[in-house]
Order: sequence, then C-alpha cells, then structure tokens
Amino acid sequence: MQQTTDPLPSWQAGAAKDAILQFINRVTTAGEHFVPPEQRIAVFDHDGTLWVEKPLVTELAFIADLLRHNPAHAVADGESFFGGLFGHHLGQWLSYIRHWFALLMRQLLADGRWLLREFIDGISTDDYQHFAKNWLQHARHPRFQCLYSELVYQPMLEVLALLQQHGFKNYLVSGGSNYFIRAMAQTSYQIPPEQAIGSQLLTRLTQRNGRLQVELRPVPWFFDNGSGKVLAIASRIDRQPIAAFGNSSGDIKMLRWAGQHPAALCMLVHHTDAKREYQYSPGAKTLQAATEYQWQLVDMAQDWKRVFPFETSDDVV
Amino acid sequence: MQQTTDPLPSWQAGAAKDAILQFINRVTTAGEHFVPPEQRIAVFDHDGTLWVEKPLVTELAFIADLLRHNPAHAVADGESFFGGLFGHHLGQWLSYIRHWFALLMRQLLADGRWLLREFIDGISTDDYQHFAKNWLQHARHPRFQCLYSELVYQPMLEVLALLQQHGFKNYLVSGGSNYFIRAMAQTSYQIPPEQAIGSQLLTRLTQRNGRLQVELRPVPWFFDNGSGKVLAIASRIDRQPIAAFGNSSGDIKMLRWAGQHPAALCMLVHHTDAKREYQYSPGAKTLQAATEYQWQLVDMAQDWKRVFPFETSDDVV
Repeated sequence: MQQTTDPLPSWQAGAAKDAILQFINRVTTAGEHFVPPEQRIAVFDHDGTLWVEKPLVTELAFIADLLRHNPAHAVADGESFFGGLFGHHLGQWLSYIRHWFALLMRQLLADGRWLLREFIDGISTDDYQHFAKNWLQHARHPRFQCLYSELVYQPMLEVLALLQQHGFKNYLVSGGSNYFIRAMAQTSYQIPPEQAIGSQLLTRLTQRNGRLQVELRPVPWFFDNGSGKVLAIASRIDRQPIAAFGNSSGDIKMLRWAGQHPAALCMLVHHTDAKREYQYSPGAKTLQAATEYQWQLVDMAQDWKRVFPFETSDDVV
Repeated sequence: MQQTTDPLPSWQAGAAKDAILQFINRVTTAGEHFVPPEQRIAVFDHDGTLWVEKPLVTELAFIADLLRHNPAHAVADGESFFGGLFGHHLGQWLSYIRHWFALLMRQLLADGRWLLREFIDGISTDDYQHFAKNWLQHARHPRFQCLYSELVYQPMLEVLALLQQHGFKNYLVSGGSNYFIRAMAQTSYQIPPEQAIGSQLLTRLTQRNGRLQVELRPVPWFFDNGSGKVLAIASRIDRQPIAAFGNSSGDIKMLRWAGQHPAALCMLVHHTDAKREYQYSPGAKTLQAATEYQWQLVDMAQDWKRVFPFETSDDVV
C-alpha cells in the first residue's frame, strides 16, 4: 500500500531511482547543497531521452512525409529569391550556387545532422508548427503502430513532473527544430515554448496582406547540439543547469557543464532494451565520459518497470 | 485620500494613463478581449524606454570606461586566435583581415550600432556581466551625477509592476547586449535573465582548468533591433506580445507586430522634457508609424508627474 505514494512508480528500485530522489532531497533541504528555487534548472535532451528516436529521429520522419505530401514545396524557388535580390543574371548564377549548396545540405540531411530542405523557404514558423501538430495527431510509428506522441518514456514523464513539483523549471534542449519541439512540448511534457530550446534556421520578417509574419529561410542558423546546447542555454537563460539528462554524444558537453555544480544530477539514458524499445550504444566516447564524470546510467531494461504510458505492468499499482 | 490606491501614481491623468488602465482591464476581464494569463506577454525596449539613453547609450559608456581602465584587453590578440586555427602564416594574413574588420567595426561602434570591440575576444560572458555589475555600482552619469541605475523611469517601473500583478510576463527586448542588460534586469525591473533578450556576439565553449565556460568572440551574431526584435521574440518565446513599449525606429516592427493583436496596447515614449530629462525626436518615420498604427504617445513632459525615482513631486502622495 506504500507504493501508491511512490513519486516514481515506473522506476525499479535501484541506483538510478535513488540518485534522482537523493538529488531532489539534497537541493530542496536546508543545508550545504540547498539550491533556491530560481536556480533549480533542469535540462532534457529530447530524441532518445524523452521519447523514441529509432528507426529515424521523428522530425526527419515528419519532413519526409511533408515532402511526399506537399510536392509543390519541394520545387526549388532559388531563382525568384535571388533574382529579386540581385537582378536576373546575377540571380541566376547565385541560384546555381544555391542549388549546389542545397545538394550538399541534402547530403547533410541524410546524415541526420541538418533539418534543412529547399522546400522550407518561405514557410512561416506558425505554418511549420501547424503542419507538425497535425502530423503528430495522425502519423504512426512503423514498429509500434501508434502515434509518435504516445512513444514518450513514462519514467521520464514522472521525473519531469517530480522536478516541477519541487520548484524546478524544466527545459527541453533538443537538436530538433524550435518549431517542431514546440508543437508538442506543452502537451507532452508541460514545457511551455519559452522553455523549449531547439535548432534554428535563419528567419526573416515578411509582410502578407499588411500583416507581419516570421518565415523560415533555407539557411542553417544554429545547431543545438554538443557545445551548441551549452551556448544556447547560456544565451537563453544565463544560468547553469543543476540537473541534465541525455543519451548521446551530442549531450556530453551539456552534462559536463551541469556537472560542474557541486550538487548536480547528471543522467545518461542507456538503450538496453531491444524487446520493449531498442538496443543501441551511445558510442564509446559517451560511455567513457559517463565513467570519467560519474554520470548515473539509466539502464532501460533494468531500471524501468515500464517504458511507455500505454504499457501495463504487474509491478505498477 | 483616493490617490493612495492609484496604481500609477507618477502618471498624470490623461490619455496615456487611461490607455494603460483600460488595456489591463480589457484583457483581464471576462469578455471579448480576455487574454489567458499564459498569453499575457509584454515587451519593453530598454534604452530610452525604461531608462536614460543620452548623451550616450549606457552600454557604450560602459565599454568606453572598460577600455580606458583595462588597457590589456584593448590589445589585439587576433594573431594568436587565427594562428592557432590555421597555422602561423595563414593566421597572420587572417589577422590582417581581422584588423581591417575590427577597424570597420570600430567605425560602426562609433555609430552606436555594434557593441563589438577587439578587446572582447576571450572574455567569459560571466566576466562581462561581472564587470558591468561593478561598473553600474560606481559609474556616474555626466549630467545627473548619480548612478546610471538610478536613471530608470519611475512611471515605467509602475507599469512593469502593474502588469506583473495582472499575470503578465514582462520581457526586456534591447539593442544592448544580453550580458549587459542581465547585469541589471532583475534588480532594476524584476525581470529574470530568461526574460531579458539582447544583442549577441558569437560565443564559444572553452575549457579552463578543466572547467567549461562560455566566452565571447569578436563576431557580431545577432543585432536585436528592428525586425531582429520580432525574430528574437518569436525564436525565444514563440508568442506574440499583446503589449509593447518603445521609443525609436528600432522598435517600429515590434510595436507593429504586437499591434496585430486585436486587444493590444502599443506605446511610444516621446522625449519632450529637456528640463527633467532630454528633448529629442524619435524621427519622422517613427512618428508617422505612430500615427498610422494609432500607437499611444507618452509625452514625458505632460504625462509624467515625475521622471526618476529620486525626484519628489508635489503631486505624488
């Protein structure tokens, strides 16, 4: 009967669960490690840390679908853009250069590194977010055959809620784009848009029918990964997080930075569960950093009684 | 005796004061124009809107002082930076190019447009903010001979407080740098760093004695002015403000954008008071926009019973 008051019911008793509870106790209790509420900042990577990122990072699946269903947007409009800027002849030359640039970018996209496609030019940020919201309400994950938004990790939802109850501000710090993560941050994680930090394309302010709107340009502006995550947090909130959660090499710097606080909690989600989710390594560099800086590993197979909200488990009351 | 409950005691009765009170009443009362608390976003330009910007924008006065007192920082270190990146010979050539770039930037600085100086390279953002905090505690304004932080406008402090009491989130949206405005936003305006949006230099993550820190690079990254203010607000909070306050052409787009909300309050501070503060025009373009978009003008001489917190006024109880 005690279990009904367990603040982390989906977590198996063990080192990972203890680390979370002890951390919260440490920073909210008067004493050496007490941290005042306005400094209780927790940062979470998104893909692979709060929800499934296999077989493909979800925003890329979204973009692939968008391209298939909106072929009009896939047509290059470089000439009109540069032509308008520089006159026709020079504009044509620049559009060739831009074409090569787009090919390069398409290759980078294939690497999962850039979310840039030609079709993005001129889409308003509101439209992009609107498309993403729509897509998230209909698209189904190829393996689980449910909505992507159902593939958030139940144990991490409990951590988010518990931290919030203890005066923390939770930030989403994702390699995905601002516009995509904000399409779901509030509903899935109770994280408002101003606490959702993502990658960005260059934007421009345009006027349509006398109204100003913010449009995307096909120019990478900021990649929220690696050192970028630290620089983005510093630029956006000017405070060092005291708790950080990640699952890949792109999170190493963010976890190291948070770990510089003497009372910090740094956790690495380790995908060890081929049966319920996926099994893959974050890479030797990440595991080595976890050892060197003594981050708490979360062993999915061992530490989580259930992975997704829709699962039932005999252990869950 | 009624006057003690006046929420805006430093405002003279009139159209400007009415506009503020009616706006707050409109968006917080059930009805057509009601706005839920999470959408109550108010944005404020800084220099000339919340505090004095004459004879020189304060951050430029700070930088000028910093250069005088820290000559070591004024020495170009371009060679070492580029040398390290590209090897000695190419590094030397690039440092020449950088030197010319720095000269150009110095000229731009003279225009008050860029807060960039060579000396900035390698200063951590924490150091810059620390210098700024120190300076704000000691430097005196040439005319008023008091601390710059005492030259905030008392009537605007009352507006900030009143909006906050009514569930608003106030954002500072300044052409000044992130690091400078955050040195005072909390203490002067009760605006926490995550609600202070400024211009930015490029930053890099470096390691000193095994610890990560964020350092400034002498490369302009983002100028928070004009369209930039709108793009910054969209990127940072993804919501359209419903109240906006400015005083110059750099605020036109921000006021127009906020003004697209049917219940919006847009105000332009007009410096009409040579005796108590300064008298200068925001320029024909700004005044024309104010007329075209029907922004409420704040006539300093007429609308403000007192300008600064240290003033006494017979009208103030």
